[in-house]
Amino acid sequence: MTMQDARTPATEDDGRRLGWHKGYLSGSRPDLRVPVRRVHLTDGKDVTLYDTSGPYTDPAIDTDVRRGLSPLRRNWITERDDTEEYAGRELRPEDDGIKHTTPRGGLVRGAEGDLAGLDAVFPGRARRPRRGRERPDGGGPASVTQLAYAKLGLVTPEMEYAALRERCSPEFVRDEIAAGRAVLPANVNHPETEPMVIGKNFLVKVNANIGNSAVTSSIEEEVEKMTWATRWGADTVMDLSTGRNIHTTREWVLRNSPVPIGTVPLYQALEKVDGRAERLSWEVYKDTVVEQCEQGVDYMTVHAGVLLRYVPLTARRKTGIVSRGGSIMAAWCLAHHEESFLYTHFAELCDILRTYDVTFSLGDGLRPGCIADANDTAQMAELDTLGELNRIAREHDVQTMIEGPGHVPMHKIKENVERQQEVCDEAPFYTLGPLTTDVAPGYDHITSGIGAAMIGWWGTAMLCYVTPKEHLGLPDRDDVKTGVITYKIAAHAADLAKGHPAAQDWDDALSDARFEFRWEDQFNLALDPDTARSFHDATLPAEPAKTAHFCSMCGPKFCSMKISRAVMEEFGPQSPDGADALTEDEVRSGMLAKSREFAESGNRVYLPLTE
Amino acid sequence: MTMQDARTPATEDDGRRLGWHKGYLSGSRPDLRVPVRRVHLTDGKDVTLYDTSGPYTDPAIDTDVRRGLSPLRRNWITERDDTEEYAGRELRPEDDGIKHTTPRGGLVRGAEGDLAGLDAVFPGRARRPRRGRERPDGGGPASVTQLAYAKLGLVTPEMEYAALRERCSPEFVRDEIAAGRAVLPANVNHPETEPMVIGKNFLVKVNANIGNSAVTSSIEEEVEKMTWATRWGADTVMDLSTGRNIHTTREWVLRNSPVPIGTVPLYQALEKVDGRAERLSWEVYKDTVVEQCEQGVDYMTVHAGVLLRYVPLTARRKTGIVSRGGSIMAAWCLAHHEESFLYTHFAELCDILRTYDVTFSLGDGLRPGCIADANDTAQMAELDTLGELNRIAREHDVQTMIEGPGHVPMHKIKENVERQQEVCDEAPFYTLGPLTTDVAPGYDHITSGIGAAMIGWWGTAMLCYVTPKEHLGLPDRDDVKTGVITYKIAAHAADLAKGHPAAQDWDDALSDARFEFRWEDQFNLALDPDTARSFHDATLPAEPAKTAHFCSMCGPKFCSMKISRAVMEEFGPQSPDGADALTEDEVRSGMLAKSREFAESGNRVYLPLTE
Repeated sequence: MTMQDARTPATEDDGRRLGWHKGYLSGSRPDLRVPVRRVHLTDGKDVTLYDTSGPYTDPAIDTDVRRGLSPLRRNWITERDDTEEYAGRELRPEDDGIKHTTPRGGLVRGAEGDLAGLDAVFPGRARRPRRGRERPDGGGPASVTQLAYAKLGLVTPEMEYAALRERCSPEFVRDEIAAGRAVLPANVNHPETEPMVIGKNFLVKVNANIGNSAVTSSIEEEVEKMTWATRWGADTVMDLSTGRNIHTTREWVLRNSPVPIGTVPLYQALEKVDGRAERLSWEVYKDTVVEQCEQGVDYMTVHAGVLLRYVPLTARRKTGIVSRGGSIMAAWCLAHHEESFLYTHFAELCDILRTYDVTFSLGDGLRPGCIADANDTAQMAELDTLGELNRIAREHDVQTMIEGPGHVPMHKIKENVERQQEVCDEAPFYTLGPLTTDVAPGYDHITSGIGAAMIGWWGTAMLCYVTPKEHLGLPDRDDVKTGVITYKIAAHAADLAKGHPAAQDWDDALSDARFEFRWEDQFNLALDPDTARSFHDATLPAEPAKTAHFCSMCGPKFCSMKISRAVMEEFGPQSPDGADALTEDEVRSGMLAKSREFAESGNRVYLPLTE
Repeated sequence: MTMQDARTPATEDDGRRLGWHKGYLSGSRPDLRVPVRRVHLTDGKDVTLYDTSGPYTDPAIDTDVRRGLSPLRRNWITERDDTEEYAGRELRPEDDGIKHTTPRGGLVRGAEGDLAGLDAVFPGRARRPRRGRERPDGGGPASVTQLAYAKLGLVTPEMEYAALRERCSPEFVRDEIAAGRAVLPANVNHPETEPMVIGKNFLVKVNANIGNSAVTSSIEEEVEKMTWATRWGADTVMDLSTGRNIHTTREWVLRNSPVPIGTVPLYQALEKVDGRAERLSWEVYKDTVVEQCEQGVDYMTVHAGVLLRYVPLTARRKTGIVSRGGSIMAAWCLAHHEESFLYTHFAELCDILRTYDVTFSLGDGLRPGCIADANDTAQMAELDTLGELNRIAREHDVQTMIEGPGHVPMHKIKENVERQQEVCDEAPFYTLGPLTTDVAPGYDHITSGIGAAMIGWWGTAMLCYVTPKEHLGLPDRDDVKTGVITYKIAAHAADLAKGHPAAQDWDDALSDARFEFRWEDQFNLALDPDTARSFHDATLPAEPAKTAHFCSMCGPKFCSMKISRAVMEEFGPQSPDGADALTEDEVRSGMLAKSREFAESGNRVYLPLTE
């Protein structure tokens, strides 16, 4: 269960030899060290890349999933002196969907199901939950959210940490959070998180969904998918488990996750009432939310925008309501013929979330499930309500993101972002895809990666990945990797198009390496070095080929890059901005000299095979 | 070497049972039958899809790669009575890069290299090439191009064939060709082609590149890649071979290809002068062009826009000149310090191409090879020259496309299309990708699929695919399939965004099947039925699961689609345009009725496992 492999450098010296190592950026205090991936190029330069992989890729740290990660943020939280430990909610077997009782204190033991390889109970040391303490003025519990601090003008260590990752000032992070344009999901009960910020003025982020269902998957698989997803670049992970062992799976995931964890509490609440939507109530839901707040969930999808009057708007759709949360709430509204309890108790929900710093992800329960239903009245009506709820959450100091579609053809994507930004006061948009066509099941990472790149460019702050198994089954480990890599491509393409100052450095470094035939540098700089290396080796496996000045596409005899380099060497040093343009005379004399030299060298385009 | 497999229906009755069969649309004459893929849905409806797979997927046709395909268009060509057969150019061993001579008439026998499985010589019956006959008025050979016919107001069988595929009128195809906004590549010496049209007012097309290099690949592999690419939807194929057996490989490919074949004659010309660019000349190039015209190449990439004065403009680039053709011509210009012979002899080249109806694909030899070089002066200068050449070609009745980049970040893509359309009088744009980031070698089908979808939406007529092996090696059979499927997704997403009238029918049919849990229909309608089916079966392999009203994502107990269907059944028939909106009273009474019915059914969201 560790991401260290044969290629993980054991020391910095090893790293220089292997081409990369895990490094850290130093902050303003000794316990503020921000992990990065440092790629060491063969030309002596270093390239520093954003790193989401957590302590698993640091050979100096001994990780053990049975113990969990170190509570990186614990001191920062306690230093603020506005939280307290407390007994916490009583744990119950039904938290895991199990009928028989167990002794207080432990989680459910001996639960049935697919627990091969890991005990059901998380074996790490006992912990008491933490929450905002009562304020001295008797005004109720403190708001312990990054939004509350930002509004007060405070820069937290979490904000500084995120700023170092983004290469911006901590004050900028604070300002964006204070304005509601960004969130920093960081539950006080998930001190293991490495802080990160989500907002349109930062790098575009990627979320990976994991989670078992009634049909398939085990706890061990879910924990492994989480570490695997972050290894390839997932910025957050949502645990969408719906079957047995929901509580216990989540405990394992949280204690081992270096990234914020999101959930949909409604799924677990429904399990507690045996899947009968009409038995759901504010009380059952609230109990589940508190349970998850105490565990450390960093953000929660809440489908509070599915109002009774919107349900009939979906009746004429081609694929109706495709969101699970949306359809559960629609069923509840129909059964009770009442407004959704999520909507009527929304302020109360805010009061719970702000005492743990749990971030809202306001779910789009009426998102379109096919091209034909995109941007319809139901979707847009719900979005207006999410805008209203966003303002309420903000007044309550609760950080908030807004979820978005779904299935949208390319020409209707921009309208989605623009409308969301307008209606929701620029709150971070968090979109699923969108899929730009319905006709390619098995390739929906690609149908949606297209839409994701575009919507990211136009202002979406975080992209929820889609894997090749979408519509067909639950993703396995390979699907998780494919989904994450595809979405990292979309996010980075969006960063480039948005003109993020740091984004193009990476492309430039890789293109320089490509032009200069530094194959090892190309591999080490690649989003997926393993795949790049193995594809190259499939045609030219020999080790010398990795220093060869050609590739298998043109072969050793002829290579366009070589000709270009001759031209470039002739006409002076590279100057991308063109500020230093050649004069006409320079060009003419250069051309003549080049022409002469070329003739002297035998005018060869092909190069000797032995080179 | 046949695409028929266990699932290819042997008869129409078999097809109905298996879910699809190869059908034909009838034209105005008995020999005009346009192939389609007819998907038979379990609800009794049929969906008709565009089909590029050629006779290989028709069980009624006995194909044999050693014999080649039937000359579908032969009568149409001879009926026009403006061409003649002639002796043709003498074949020479160096056409295949071989030094020893062989008897006249046969192609090169016993060539060395990787010819396992296929004879080097194409064994089909001898054929004499055909070209435009001298005009009775002594004005030189006839222009036998679709453009010449269109200008005269003629609708050819080829145009009608393409129109049936596009679901438009033959006159519309003629008008678009006459205006230079579309091309119909169809060399009189490639009568095996199934005609298709490329232009921004038609479905977006996809080209797949194949071809051996000095390092790898055999003739058999190349022929198989061609049939495999068309099986998955490639609309044209370019044979970019650069190593041995160029002539013979092309002969096998042409005689077996149901789609237009493109080449870059410069590659073969360079082989004939031992790879020494300065030894290239108009004479050697012209000889090669005539050789390929006589074989039946449908379109040729010509890098005539790389002018001497543009070469220094690439000196300050990050990756210089990355086009092989571009760098060969740059090397020639430098060696001779003269203007490119492709440019100075362009009118003469037009006179050759118009007597065979070979279409120009004016190459962008100075296309950018990385994000940093996108849309630079060199690229735009060459584009202006391509615009000038396009006008010359048009005056000579030669059909013309313009090639485009390359590597372009998302925010610079639109400018490319708009400028090309303006400078080149709306001639069809044919782009490679573009790749929207440089950082993901191994996934460049995805980095470029994003750009391809966008540029297709904005007006590119044909997308040249990029495979996962780009920058790393030559694509194998799996890479070809991945590249084609990715680009079919991009092309279809573009068709949807452009609002092509027939495009959304396909998405709607698949989404209806999805909503109604018609799994077999979903698979048969999918762009890649095999992958969709296998991904589904990986989680739920049992046959009953394919008729089950649930999927492995939510499991059998709970399903959002089911709830939606209940809502939909309540609130009346589906009407996507919403014209028939429900009144407020209808909604209220509907909600109450629904609420009552839901209560009576036990208010269950979960459904019994046995269902």
